[in-house]
Amino acid sequence: MASPAPTRPVDSPWQPAGQRARQREVKRQAVLQTAAQLFNEKGFHATSLDDIAERLHVSKPTLYYYVKSKDDILLECVRTALGMMQAGIDEVRRAGGRAIDQLMACMRIYSSIVMQDFGMCVIRIGEDPLPAPRRKELRRLKAGIDAEFRRLIAEGIAEGSLAPCDPKMAAFALAGALSWIGRWYRPDGDLDPAHIADQCIELLMAGVRQRPAPPARDNVRSRRAPNPPN
Amino acid sequence: MASPAPTRPVDSPWQPAGQRARQREVKRQAVLQTAAQLFNEKGFHATSLDDIAERLHVSKPTLYYYVKSKDDILLECVRTALGMMQAGIDEVRRAGGRAIDQLMACMRIYSSIVMQDFGMCVIRIGEDPLPAPRRKELRRLKAGIDAEFRRLIAEGIAEGSLAPCDPKMAAFALAGALSWIGRWYRPDGDLDPAHIADQCIELLMAGVRQRPAPPARDNVRSRRAPNPPN
Repeated sequence: MASPAPTRPVDSPWQPAGQRARQREVKRQAVLQTAAQLFNEKGFHATSLDDIAERLHVSKPTLYYYVKSKDDILLECVRTALGMMQAGIDEVRRAGGRAIDQLMACMRIYSSIVMQDFGMCVIRIGEDPLPAPRRKELRRLKAGIDAEFRRLIAEGIAEGSLAPCDPKMAAFALAGALSWIGRWYRPDGDLDPAHIADQCIELLMAGVRQRPAPPARDNVRSRRAPNPPN
Repeated sequence: MASPAPTRPVDSPWQPAGQRARQREVKRQAVLQTAAQLFNEKGFHATSLDDIAERLHVSKPTLYYYVKSKDDILLECVRTALGMMQAGIDEVRRAGGRAIDQLMACMRIYSSIVMQDFGMCVIRIGEDPLPAPRRKELRRLKAGIDAEFRRLIAEGIAEGSLAPCDPKMAAFALAGALSWIGRWYRPDGDLDPAHIADQCIELLMAGVRQRPAPPARDNVRSRRAPNPPN
């Protein structure tokens, strides 16, 4: 007897598991990013889960499928930004080259991230609203990035491209000035992120780069600073 | 008939009105300053009015005689710090002199205040937890200080002591780096505030001061920045 013609399987209205997981991740990212934008616009405390749901045209219960709480969202936003910074710095370190060039590349990564949604959260909201163990975790990530800046500055001094200075203080000043971009940058403003980064990095590098003595007529330096860095 | 000997008035157990008002103000300041210290140590949200009362050895109802709420305290702390900055800057402006010297004096005031309790609140907590009208008021105060920095930088360029640059961007970078001190400075740490200020200001001034071209071997500047400030 001839076997029956194979029946054509019904097209499943469910997506394959891998695709579902990807879809879920895309949606989770949209929740996080929308939340980050609202935190940065309105402030963390003034933003409710209802606001986030409304902007995404979903119900609040839908959000809970992707995130546990507002704290959980903030933690993820900050963790993501710090992770991006660390990954970028790691890549620069692996590529090698002069410490001064690595430092500038890291400054470029840092400033670019503080002008993005998650990075802006790090600067505008920070870890303050989170419970102590979470704050500690985020501080540890930040300390790791700070350590990279210090190390590169110390290496730059050793290779002669940077003027002798206290790497700890210089790292704070550089990262501080770049961090502040995240406070004042307006995504809808008329300044281009790359232009902002160029200008700030240029100004800051002039402060740490090995350089000739300033012209004699300018004696402010020797009067004001007992321990000038060069 | 002889008039009766004048009776000696009883010593009032109440203090004169003027003294009472002063006492009240001293106590109110102690509440604000203790609150600022706790906000800076533990974070604004992790600090309760009970914590503040406990540190001052008073009851919470006693606090309400001096302040309305935690929001009210934060507002006063930030307002006080910004007022101190503006007053310091006004004094520098009145004293006159070269714009570069005025700028450095203002940077010194700014950095000194961000290392004090109220100033640290501006940087660590900011206006985020406050309702919108309060946030707006504080942003207006900050914008005033930013405007002074921009004006001094523009004047410094005009007098030839500062290298040509975008005053808006330079003001953000300078104030940003100095602001960040308030994030990492530890009152119980081993770094002296004056030393920190000197080092940071020195580094930043090297970035904006009018200066000779960098040595030819260092060509990073011309490669990286299409519009170098000098």
